[in-house]
Amino acid sequence: MDGIHLLGEWYGCPADQPEMLRADALRRRCLDAVAAAGLTTVGERFHQFEPQGVTGAVILAESHLAIHTWPERESVTIDVYVCNFTTDNTAKAESVFRSLERTLRPKRTRFQAIHRGGADG
Amino acid sequence: MDGIHLLGEWYGCPADQPEMLRADALRRRCLDAVAAAGLTTVGERFHQFEPQGVTGAVILAESHLAIHTWPERESVTIDVYVCNFTTDNTAKAESVFRSLERTLRPKRTRFQAIHRGGADG
Repeated sequence: MDGIHLLGEWYGCPADQPEMLRADALRRRCLDAVAAAGLTTVGERFHQFEPQGVTGAVILAESHLAIHTWPERESVTIDVYVCNFTTDNTAKAESVFRSLERTLRPKRTRFQAIHRGGADG
Repeated sequence: MDGIHLLGEWYGCPADQPEMLRADALRRRCLDAVAAAGLTTVGERFHQFEPQGVTGAVILAESHLAIHTWPERESVTIDVYVCNFTTDNTAKAESVFRSLERTLRPKRTRFQAIHRGGADG
């Protein structure tokens, strides 16, 4: 399936912000970012690590968002993957990605954008 | 965070098998593959598209599995991402990936393995 997958590794994220620490805070930001971008959430699941840290996924009609925080390392990994089945959703994926980057405020980032699919897709 | 991310695009998957069509069937296979590999499920969410097709995610202590089926195109995309925080989980990720590939039986595949993280990870 033709699509775009954005992968981020974020470092130096302030570890004391609620979105790094607590599942409910990060979940809310993710759902808001998806809605603001015009993508469609069809389900979500977030897990609270104790004493801190979050892992979660939002499944979309257009594919998925996945995010993991490691407050003890001030690091985050994020994936935003959208298929471009009936329309090009690339700009919407970038909107979600950048919105969460503004929230989590990494000092250093590594970014990859991967084209998925191909002749058969 | 240092880790390995396996991405697959699968084509020519027989569209009449339950795992392509129904969320409950695919969910069961995913959870079984994760458990058999020795990875730890901390949550999961699968969505049934109507009339057919599935999208879902399993969130792991070690990161995530995400999978999407398009029976009408006989195609699947799959992501298995594991961090190698305290131990190298690469072989476990490959086990999950290959298990689901055997289940869904693609005739043609595209595979990428992406190293995530780096000097800061």
